[in-house]
Amino acid sequence: MSTERRTIAQLAQALRSRDVTAEAVTDRCLAVIAERNASLNAFIAVLADTAFEDARRADQEIAAGRYRGPLHGVPISLKDLIDVKGTPTTAASRVREGHVAAADAPVVTRLREAGAVIIGKTNLHEFALGTTNEDSAFGPARHPLDPTRSPGGSSGGSAASVLADMAYASIGTDTGGSIRIPSAACGLVGLKPALGEIPTAGIVPLSSTLDHVGPLCRSVEDAGIVYDVLRDATPGGDRKPRGMEGLRLGVLRGYFMAVLDPQVASAFERACARLRDAGVTLQDVTVPHAGDIAPIYVHIVLSEAAAYHAKTLESHGDDYTPNVRHRLEMGRYILAEDYVRALRGREVLMGEVDAALAGCDGLFLPSLPIPAHKIGVSSVRIGGADEPIRNVTLRLTQLFNVTGHPAVTIPCGSTPEGLPIGAQLVGRRSGTSELLNLAGALEPHLGPGTSR
Amino acid sequence: MSTERRTIAQLAQALRSRDVTAEAVTDRCLAVIAERNASLNAFIAVLADTAFEDARRADQEIAAGRYRGPLHGVPISLKDLIDVKGTPTTAASRVREGHVAAADAPVVTRLREAGAVIIGKTNLHEFALGTTNEDSAFGPARHPLDPTRSPGGSSGGSAASVLADMAYASIGTDTGGSIRIPSAACGLVGLKPALGEIPTAGIVPLSSTLDHVGPLCRSVEDAGIVYDVLRDATPGGDRKPRGMEGLRLGVLRGYFMAVLDPQVASAFERACARLRDAGVTLQDVTVPHAGDIAPIYVHIVLSEAAAYHAKTLESHGDDYTPNVRHRLEMGRYILAEDYVRALRGREVLMGEVDAALAGCDGLFLPSLPIPAHKIGVSSVRIGGADEPIRNVTLRLTQLFNVTGHPAVTIPCGSTPEGLPIGAQLVGRRSGTSELLNLAGALEPHLGPGTSR
Repeated sequence: MSTERRTIAQLAQALRSRDVTAEAVTDRCLAVIAERNASLNAFIAVLADTAFEDARRADQEIAAGRYRGPLHGVPISLKDLIDVKGTPTTAASRVREGHVAAADAPVVTRLREAGAVIIGKTNLHEFALGTTNEDSAFGPARHPLDPTRSPGGSSGGSAASVLADMAYASIGTDTGGSIRIPSAACGLVGLKPALGEIPTAGIVPLSSTLDHVGPLCRSVEDAGIVYDVLRDATPGGDRKPRGMEGLRLGVLRGYFMAVLDPQVASAFERACARLRDAGVTLQDVTVPHAGDIAPIYVHIVLSEAAAYHAKTLESHGDDYTPNVRHRLEMGRYILAEDYVRALRGREVLMGEVDAALAGCDGLFLPSLPIPAHKIGVSSVRIGGADEPIRNVTLRLTQLFNVTGHPAVTIPCGSTPEGLPIGAQLVGRRSGTSELLNLAGALEPHLGPGTSR
Repeated sequence: MSTERRTIAQLAQALRSRDVTAEAVTDRCLAVIAERNASLNAFIAVLADTAFEDARRADQEIAAGRYRGPLHGVPISLKDLIDVKGTPTTAASRVREGHVAAADAPVVTRLREAGAVIIGKTNLHEFALGTTNEDSAFGPARHPLDPTRSPGGSSGGSAASVLADMAYASIGTDTGGSIRIPSAACGLVGLKPALGEIPTAGIVPLSSTLDHVGPLCRSVEDAGIVYDVLRDATPGGDRKPRGMEGLRLGVLRGYFMAVLDPQVASAFERACARLRDAGVTLQDVTVPHAGDIAPIYVHIVLSEAAAYHAKTLESHGDDYTPNVRHRLEMGRYILAEDYVRALRGREVLMGEVDAALAGCDGLFLPSLPIPAHKIGVSSVRIGGADEPIRNVTLRLTQLFNVTGHPAVTIPCGSTPEGLPIGAQLVGRRSGTSELLNLAGALEPHLGPGTSR
């Protein structure tokens, strides 16, 4: 087979017309894993044997005319928070030692029914509680374009696996940005669907109020293909190509532009200019209480995470990585009245994001304020101030976990040294398909896609 | 007009056929209030002037052939947690001094649109945080059958107003039993609809997760009439008389029978026997974790109440009654992880009540473990043990606030000295109308209705 990079949509055509076999595609992914995983640390577990079985079954079914749809025979990786029957779900933590999943998570069942090849389980920030993938019992995942840098997190191994051609898409989770942050850092399309659309059963929780499941992949079309399978819907049912006529985007200013690496800021402004040239109307909009998002987010996440981890913090505290343990222990001191207050603040923000969306087709903002950072660095200098990496990386994504609006990151350029930069589109609540239609129309105008 | 006790359904016929005027009915209620409120303390505010305006407008409309429905011209009282434009909402607390409501609560708007006469604002346990009505800035409400006893609470003035013929129904709130407890103590029908059916806007919150709004009245039919108005539905739309054939009730045993005054226990067993005689099949059912309800309930209520009251506890702590202040201050020490754990426990109980309902038309249990108690008493002796009044009174009702299932109390007998005893029916989630149909069929078999 060709080694050129393909999207799922392109690969699916080749598989369906039997120009290529799923077995050959799977073999190629496994070869890349064999070659690069030692340096990238993207996978915690490679499921070579069962992946070949999946692939050969797909080839037989396709040959027999039983084509299941665009994921049939396509290698997909899974963040190692997601249960695959008979396999450990490590959550990148020593706390989980000895665990073996008793059943597939519902999203895995859906992927199998769609004929996907489950290629392996990817590295992550321990228990998804972090944005860099640096705190992992298996060591940090590394950026395929520069292994001294972080691919972002928490779904860092997922992003690295797709960028490095070890899988055609990965399933991640996103509680504050954990799909969108690594997708932006790695030049991928990352979709956080609307709250509650995709089942979270069989997935180790971080915050049951804010956890979302979604794909990291190579194009908006691919995100739609995987999204349809994850939500168990007819492929492409309510997603239609749309034109550019009359498009109106709300550009989020204020808080959202206050802390940005200059390279990200200028790439975003260039993207805005290209959209204007393409006929899109851009108007400034605000979310008045956006500046309150960090305390609201952290009280919700750490309270719920502390409730889940309370017993193991007491019995296996030393098995956590120090940073993650520290954050969880902080959560154990939060008062109920403050958590309840955070939930009230959440309702205010939901209304404000709805209002910002009222006069436009979607919101537009950068995805990640900085390009991929060097592993081991704890803060970055922006606008003359030192900003902690964790705060900076969550800054533009966590709001839409709290409000539940669907959001997708799309590559919109890169730094002079070639590090990807992403732009984020946000749609109406329960409007994930509309958001993907919009993103599909804008994608050709935003940037070159992933550079390699 | 006749001074005989009528239900709303009976009064409505007389009003519609102009055998009686709303003005005369209102005048009679105000006369009873003038005669008995000084001893019963049921009303915090009597709205005589506007009630007469409401009544005269109703008479004019009815005379002009513009009949609005069965609440047209009917005097209704409102628990003084509910906003009436231009009137203080005291919540029975000195903390609220100086408050005047800027608008009607949505439920008041609906009552006005139905033509109801708003006769006044009733006494309650301060901020609804108690089950006896004894902690009130306006002093305790008193039981119309024996003013040395409590009418129950928190909607104690509401129940007293209906039992004493000061109103034909009252709108109360129920967070752990605050409609059903005083209804049972006063021989009324009290309905807690399913969670979320009736808007709580414009009503001082106790616990936004568990607060319900509903009627206290004289018959199941009346409860349906008021319920339809509160939920803004076509009168009687989905409520139909149903026969007794094939009826099957699940009788809750275990926890639910473990702490019962012997008079209540025997009245309940006699009610069971009458239902069996009428052809109803009774089967024992259980809610395995019912014994965990008290800690789950108290963590949810006190956390949410503490969040609401935090600022005024600091600025106006001395303005609360000591018991209510003490409970609220306790809530300020609850940890978020424990509150989150209580919400998880809530989900378990929801499933267990659903399961108990699976094989029957409704659940059947007593409403209140004791007859109306003497004001000033803090515990009662049951089965050789001293039981705190607060724990006992909440024991049989709070579960269905936590799970959100609709529940109604119906009189099922009385003690030898004439104190009412109530039985409770519980329906499927979102099945309030079905529950009322069931309750309407069973009501004639349960007891004599309100004894006076």
